[in-house]
Amino acid sequence: MKAHVWVMLKSTVLDPQGQTIQRALGSLGHTKIKDVRQGKFFVLALDGMSRDEAHSEVERIAKDVLTNPVIEEFRFDIVE
Amino acid sequence: MKAHVWVMLKSTVLDPQGQTIQRALGSLGHTKIKDVRQGKFFVLALDGMSRDEAHSEVERIAKDVLTNPVIEEFRFDIVE
Repeated sequence: MKAHVWVMLKSTVLDPQGQTIQRALGSLGHTKIKDVRQGKFFVLALDGMSRDEAHSEVERIAKDVLTNPVIEEFRFDIVE
Repeated sequence: MKAHVWVMLKSTVLDPQGQTIQRALGSLGHTKIKDVRQGKFFVLALDGMSRDEAHSEVERIAKDVLTNPVIEEFRFDIVE
């Protein structure tokens, strides 16, 4: 079983990395790109778990390990 | 309109960052997590484009700017 986890800066937090990419795209002629936000994406491979167990385990991992709750938020999905 | 772009290391390329997270999870008791791969996730906001234009523009951006084709691969989705 696999889990996908997305970790993004909260929308109220400035994303300088995304802004740099957006400006770089503009200078390359991609002027219709108005905003870029960059986040992290994790693929976790899980073994020997029911879907429900995977759900609560991955939620705990995303919350406690992968996300800085002061500035980031997460969402996740159990796949396969 | 928004686009989502995922950039991951190719599966043939070692992911030391993911391995470090996997070991850290193991030492925290999450021993059923057998593998972790970390990638990048981008949200692009596009303006004044048809869905088809957005598709080809985002594909070009993902390919030429966001991905290092030697070690990475991408996929993308036009949303909204």
